[in-house]
Amino acid sequence: MRMYDVITKKKHGEALTDAEIRFFVEGFTHGTIPDYQISSLMMAICLCGMNDEETAILTDAITHSGDTLDLSRFGTLSVDKHSTGGVGDKTTLVVAPLVAAAGARVAKMSGRGLGHTGGTVDKLESFAGFRTTLSADEFLSQVDQIGIAVIGQSGELAPADKKLYALRDVTATVDSIPLITSSIMGKKLAAGSHSIVLDVKYGSGGFMKTPEDAERLARAMVTIGTALGRNVAALITNMDAPLGLGIGNIIEVEEAREVLRGRGPADLREVCLSLATMMLHLSLGLTKENARALAEQTLASGAADRKFNEWIAAQGGDPTVPLPRAAHTLDVRADRDGYLAHVNAESVGVASVTLGGGRITKADEIDYTAGIILHKKVGETVKSGDLLATLYTTEKESALTAARDAVLRAITLSDAAPDPIPLIYKIITKECLDA
Amino acid sequence: MRMYDVITKKKHGEALTDAEIRFFVEGFTHGTIPDYQISSLMMAICLCGMNDEETAILTDAITHSGDTLDLSRFGTLSVDKHSTGGVGDKTTLVVAPLVAAAGARVAKMSGRGLGHTGGTVDKLESFAGFRTTLSADEFLSQVDQIGIAVIGQSGELAPADKKLYALRDVTATVDSIPLITSSIMGKKLAAGSHSIVLDVKYGSGGFMKTPEDAERLARAMVTIGTALGRNVAALITNMDAPLGLGIGNIIEVEEAREVLRGRGPADLREVCLSLATMMLHLSLGLTKENARALAEQTLASGAADRKFNEWIAAQGGDPTVPLPRAAHTLDVRADRDGYLAHVNAESVGVASVTLGGGRITKADEIDYTAGIILHKKVGETVKSGDLLATLYTTEKESALTAARDAVLRAITLSDAAPDPIPLIYKIITKECLDA
Repeated sequence: MRMYDVITKKKHGEALTDAEIRFFVEGFTHGTIPDYQISSLMMAICLCGMNDEETAILTDAITHSGDTLDLSRFGTLSVDKHSTGGVGDKTTLVVAPLVAAAGARVAKMSGRGLGHTGGTVDKLESFAGFRTTLSADEFLSQVDQIGIAVIGQSGELAPADKKLYALRDVTATVDSIPLITSSIMGKKLAAGSHSIVLDVKYGSGGFMKTPEDAERLARAMVTIGTALGRNVAALITNMDAPLGLGIGNIIEVEEAREVLRGRGPADLREVCLSLATMMLHLSLGLTKENARALAEQTLASGAADRKFNEWIAAQGGDPTVPLPRAAHTLDVRADRDGYLAHVNAESVGVASVTLGGGRITKADEIDYTAGIILHKKVGETVKSGDLLATLYTTEKESALTAARDAVLRAITLSDAAPDPIPLIYKIITKECLDA
Repeated sequence: MRMYDVITKKKHGEALTDAEIRFFVEGFTHGTIPDYQISSLMMAICLCGMNDEETAILTDAITHSGDTLDLSRFGTLSVDKHSTGGVGDKTTLVVAPLVAAAGARVAKMSGRGLGHTGGTVDKLESFAGFRTTLSADEFLSQVDQIGIAVIGQSGELAPADKKLYALRDVTATVDSIPLITSSIMGKKLAAGSHSIVLDVKYGSGGFMKTPEDAERLARAMVTIGTALGRNVAALITNMDAPLGLGIGNIIEVEEAREVLRGRGPADLREVCLSLATMMLHLSLGLTKENARALAEQTLASGAADRKFNEWIAAQGGDPTVPLPRAAHTLDVRADRDGYLAHVNAESVGVASVTLGGGRITKADEIDYTAGIILHKKVGETVKSGDLLATLYTTEKESALTAARDAVLRAITLSDAAPDPIPLIYKIITKECLDA
């Protein structure tokens, strides 16, 4: 088989065979097919597409390009959750202990933050001593004992995706539904959970900008995951403005704990409950109604909050010690009356990074205390002089003024009340694929 | 400027600006833009196209990526000819001395053969001592003195095309009209002639398989060459079967000399006269009728043949010494009665290569005596046992039997006379671009 012929076939809009897809994935992973041929093929896929069968094969080839996690000891109870990434998205910190407390098994690998989006692993390291690297035995034993463990990505999981994504990232071949689907699902399937709930973000701060594009991606991922034998569902949720009010590592941990204690912002609480409901529906086999009731009850009873503390302690953190506070703060105030019409999530995420709350390059160190707390949600009225946000930093005091200006630019105040945007646009389950 | 944004723009089907096109050509030529980004862009251009303005800018950027030949001393008399490549195409050996004898100036760079197509430089080296490398001074002085000089490609001419073509060749991004146009015209414009006549081949042995595709390419090349200030015209000629009867270096030189002496196969003679007519029309400013008359007269008077001998001698060959003959021959005979319906030019070209007449890789040595002479033209009647072809080789006697089988497979005999195919499908001049 020649790579040239595979590229030519896709360029002519034809479907690739199982053998052709595995040939290029394996050849690229092992270095026998050069990157310039793969980038040409990736562009042809971007422009000519892939059908569901091709996408499923590509996903499977990525899944099996390296190690796969065997979670069969947990039967159908294992459940994972994946977000396409957003600003202020701390839902894993809430839903993982919540569903574990309700009886599901969460053996999860999470990522670190890069650019304007944060990562769960960074947030967990807000707790001094928290171990995000566990041996396979430690990891699985902890899930056996307390129902939950969350660690960083292993280097051997889906290496094909790592190489493909790095190449796509510099060749403008990221925004292709089949390629995004195979990238996300390839990794998720390698991570082994029987059920997977996807949080597909749409809006200015999301990976997909429109709800229609987000739905296309959600349908593709549910289709491919189902075809490859997993229980998969997707929620399409809004990421026009940051989720909740807090952005930054310790700030987000604190906000997640508020939700676990039955408080916290309504939007964050609702997305968490909706995700947890779907996770319990898929993993425990409950009806959606019963799953929702169980999720609410697990939150209300304090069981989810207790599970959170048990989890942090199991991985070496001390949930009873107060988390450090930022040394420097600066208030951001409104310069006019009006309605809060829009908060550009991406710009706020970038502002948080400049305060030390995130990384521009992988090597950057994080200031766990840094970040931003917003004081208003979209749609609320604002008076001139009202507090819109507070900025926090310990390491980057000099960045405060520029960050304030950036946050002010990211916030739109208007004379008329903005049209409400649905928080959850749609839920895609395998039952609605044909609809 | 970021290459990522240039790729994204083209992927979305937008036209690139002058600055963007020169940015990627210069960056790739100087090694500051990696091949995997260029191949992604090449695929996007293949699938999304380029308009005439973009193609002209790309062509100009390629032309100016290295040295350019200054032929201004010849005023408007300098004329070049380019063939998109075929089997048995020895027209340069006829038309170059013919138009030089008629008063035009031919300061030409030619290529070597690779794969099933031959190259003029190899054919000229059939004459022992013929020098295909001359200094710039020697080259231009010879044109001053006798009106003609033909040398091999200089390494510094259009280096961007060399790099781009090598990458396109392995990433399945060759068959794009804007990319082919800019590749051919970028080199031709760097080679400096004021007038350029293109021989665009169509058919099974040509670069373009259909006359429609050949016409698209011809129109694009005439459009871009004209836009960049040159006199350009294109003939679209048939390459379903080899041109003339001979394939192989010495064999083709001998056949070209037959045409120069007023004999030779009718198809080869007609293509040569048509090309020479257009070259004289563009360079001398004659009407097409007068140019045709001058071309015929220059051939009939023996002036073209004398110019050929003068040219060979000027570059170190001896045109009076008989060229060597092959040590081994094998006849190919018909195994049935019928009409000669088709000769697959590409297969015959490959068979000639296996006899030693061409190269598979650039490092291969050529057997100048090797090749094939066909004895029938398409449309002629054939009796079982008739001689169809003779194979020639000195170095590869062991390849004769397999080559005979290959030539037999390449020749189709039929019960009914084949439909005649026009030798010259169309002539595209700048006047007919708007038609």
